[in-house]
Amino acid sequence: MNDLIIPIHSGLKEPIYEQIYRFMKAEIKRGGLPAGERVPSTRKLAGNLQISRSTVEMAYEQLLAEGYIVSQPYKGYFVAQVEELTQSDIPKDTKAEQNPVILETACLYDFSPRGIDLENFPYGVWRKITRNILQEDNKELFGNGHSQGDEELRLAICQYLHYARGVKATPDLMVVGAGNEYLLMLLAQLLGKSVVAVENPTYLQAARVLKSQGFTVKPVEQDSQGMSLLSLRGDEDIDIAYVMPSHQYPLGTVMPIKRRLELLSWAGEKEGRYIIEDDYDSEFRYKGKPIPALQGTDSGDKVIYMGTFSRSVAPAIRVSYMVLPDKLAKKYRSNIGFYSSTVSRIDQRILTEFITGGYFERHLNRMRTIYKTKHDCILEGLAKFPFEYKVHGENAGTHILIEFPVGIEYEQTLIAAARDAGVKVYGLSAYYYSGSPDRATILLGYAKMSEQSIKEGLALLKEVWGKVLQDIK
Amino acid sequence: MNDLIIPIHSGLKEPIYEQIYRFMKAEIKRGGLPAGERVPSTRKLAGNLQISRSTVEMAYEQLLAEGYIVSQPYKGYFVAQVEELTQSDIPKDTKAEQNPVILETACLYDFSPRGIDLENFPYGVWRKITRNILQEDNKELFGNGHSQGDEELRLAICQYLHYARGVKATPDLMVVGAGNEYLLMLLAQLLGKSVVAVENPTYLQAARVLKSQGFTVKPVEQDSQGMSLLSLRGDEDIDIAYVMPSHQYPLGTVMPIKRRLELLSWAGEKEGRYIIEDDYDSEFRYKGKPIPALQGTDSGDKVIYMGTFSRSVAPAIRVSYMVLPDKLAKKYRSNIGFYSSTVSRIDQRILTEFITGGYFERHLNRMRTIYKTKHDCILEGLAKFPFEYKVHGENAGTHILIEFPVGIEYEQTLIAAARDAGVKVYGLSAYYYSGSPDRATILLGYAKMSEQSIKEGLALLKEVWGKVLQDIK
Repeated sequence: MNDLIIPIHSGLKEPIYEQIYRFMKAEIKRGGLPAGERVPSTRKLAGNLQISRSTVEMAYEQLLAEGYIVSQPYKGYFVAQVEELTQSDIPKDTKAEQNPVILETACLYDFSPRGIDLENFPYGVWRKITRNILQEDNKELFGNGHSQGDEELRLAICQYLHYARGVKATPDLMVVGAGNEYLLMLLAQLLGKSVVAVENPTYLQAARVLKSQGFTVKPVEQDSQGMSLLSLRGDEDIDIAYVMPSHQYPLGTVMPIKRRLELLSWAGEKEGRYIIEDDYDSEFRYKGKPIPALQGTDSGDKVIYMGTFSRSVAPAIRVSYMVLPDKLAKKYRSNIGFYSSTVSRIDQRILTEFITGGYFERHLNRMRTIYKTKHDCILEGLAKFPFEYKVHGENAGTHILIEFPVGIEYEQTLIAAARDAGVKVYGLSAYYYSGSPDRATILLGYAKMSEQSIKEGLALLKEVWGKVLQDIK
Repeated sequence: MNDLIIPIHSGLKEPIYEQIYRFMKAEIKRGGLPAGERVPSTRKLAGNLQISRSTVEMAYEQLLAEGYIVSQPYKGYFVAQVEELTQSDIPKDTKAEQNPVILETACLYDFSPRGIDLENFPYGVWRKITRNILQEDNKELFGNGHSQGDEELRLAICQYLHYARGVKATPDLMVVGAGNEYLLMLLAQLLGKSVVAVENPTYLQAARVLKSQGFTVKPVEQDSQGMSLLSLRGDEDIDIAYVMPSHQYPLGTVMPIKRRLELLSWAGEKEGRYIIEDDYDSEFRYKGKPIPALQGTDSGDKVIYMGTFSRSVAPAIRVSYMVLPDKLAKKYRSNIGFYSSTVSRIDQRILTEFITGGYFERHLNRMRTIYKTKHDCILEGLAKFPFEYKVHGENAGTHILIEFPVGIEYEQTLIAAARDAGVKVYGLSAYYYSGSPDRATILLGYAKMSEQSIKEGLALLKEVWGKVLQDIK
């Protein structure tokens, strides 16, 4: 063992101590240096290799730290008893199989109902605010923040929600998090394994998250006024109603005040019942004032209000918020208040400035005008369609629905015909938790499209759908 | 009803249609306009109030949209049947009670073991990268990203982990998320209600998150080499071992290769067993090379590797990552791959540039030097202590431990004496999931402190602890 020959190259980038460490580690692993064998003393090895003793000491210390050799006082270093070393010799195949590639016909016109107009995002303002914040050298911004989100941000959102949505909120009741899905994950911890009623059709992504968080999800019928109270009351097990009263997705229904009060009354009848109000796309209404949030009408502390900046600012801004009833806010603090915030404090500060500086309101007003122009453009284009159809969900949000006087079995035919012409449209069936609509119904989103593309896309649809409907007759 | 008198003020900021809407809504709510009553026609009301008919129409449309009035074809508008309206009249007390304020003696010197040096954060570089990215007008950055995090970022992290930590990873196996706690929430969904063994003492925040996510948490003894395999094997129910092999928190233990292999062998014996490797503070080692990650030695696809930029870059950067075994990565994609990423794409891009531009490595190297200076400074200061003690956990991380030759019952006395002198120190007991150490042991963190404060703080500790130990004798 004393004549251990280690190939040393002094011209390499790798330091000599590392070469010794690497060589001996490999020898121990392959069994060349058996367990229990004494390794040469640092003095001896340094002499043999004609290098300094401290270099050898560094190599030995590393081997010692990683457990390849052990030190026995006054005796020296010995190769450690290392079992099952073969384990590490089998090369691991870390290449996961490729995700299946979905082949799609390239679509020139995509009427996605979840699209967002990013052409008109105020990049200049965002950049200016970011620059100012980073220039201030606010070192505390790079530290840990409040679990519920920074107080200033929560206050700014509360003030916005108060005047724009009629929501009664204080920063104490608000939790800011990285997206609605994360907030639903937190809610799952506050509400336990409850039974949640969702509108049918609905925003299925939320239903999926609820389900994967351990909730039992039950689809509930809706009529022209929103979730049916009759159906809701028909199932005693339901604890929570997940609704979008100001602008239901995907139908665009506005829940009238009577239905809202009936819903609140249902929630008030039993301890533990709650309403989750997802205030989706309520910022965009092109006729009259915005419909106030349900939460503002609640006096029984029964509404969990949720909103997001992902659609009103940009999807990249992963900031959502919820206003909890007092009881749940207390439970949040005592049970899961130790969770760290998921939103970067720098982003929180940028958003705070964006709101308090008046930029958010200006941006919303501007987008409302832009979306209204696109909305009107799509209705104008549709007016030229020579066949029968009904429009639903207009005057709000960023999509409309077209109901055809033909059965649901033709929905896929209409979608396929559009796709063949280079236009991507979305069938209402895909939003049903269970069942399907009676008639073929298509969603046309316009947020992401230019007026020109809307016109061109509709011209193509007019032609191909005309043919499809002709054939059906 | 036809002589409805609505007070209209044309000089107000509030548009006239809103005044009408607000007045009528209030009247309907308080019962002044009873359900079923016909409201004046738009023509009639416009004439009475001497305003344009379209103004009245706007007000009516809003009332209609919110459900306060209903329209009957050819008959006109009627007050809707709205029940339980008193609900909304009870003022809601939204003021949550104040969080209890913890009164603390102001401490001039805080030896927090979780502190971070933010004085030396490369603000200039961060600002420059951010500015460049925002200037590029990369609009797609403001859109939706990949569920697991942007491919470029995952690739950059994989490359870093490969050369710096010996981790075998591909972007397919990596999930990026807003903090370790969020990643544990995702893991809870992949691993179900498993039984998790944690080292005792440990990073209790992780244990708390695991528990609140439905895991059963069992503390397992550790010896000088880390988690005891004897204790681990003593409980057949345990499915998962949560360990910090390269630098255990709070003890600073490095798990030697033999123990690592034994742990891997334990995991390999049963389907569904996994090791969660939290690679906490492993970036900072002041003697020799960094200790490689356990994951790199695993050939059985049994290690879930977790790391974070919260400590190596800044806490505000809410970016953590995990490398999943192939099987769990597949499960992630099929079961919860629909979850949106919790990290802003802009932040992902900034971090990608920070890593690929070489700034991250440079920052780490710089911080290693700075932390080493502070580490040496604390050891020098301690060398002047005239009483007996043992130092543990040195040469790595950002804190050391001092074990006193007195019983655990004196730990609080030592902490209190320090606090009275204006120095905040941390007792090891607080990190125990159950039980406590035999001897009074204090953690001294140095990351956040200047050399000057370390010297001054230690001088104070030397004095007050000298007295305490004298009194005990």
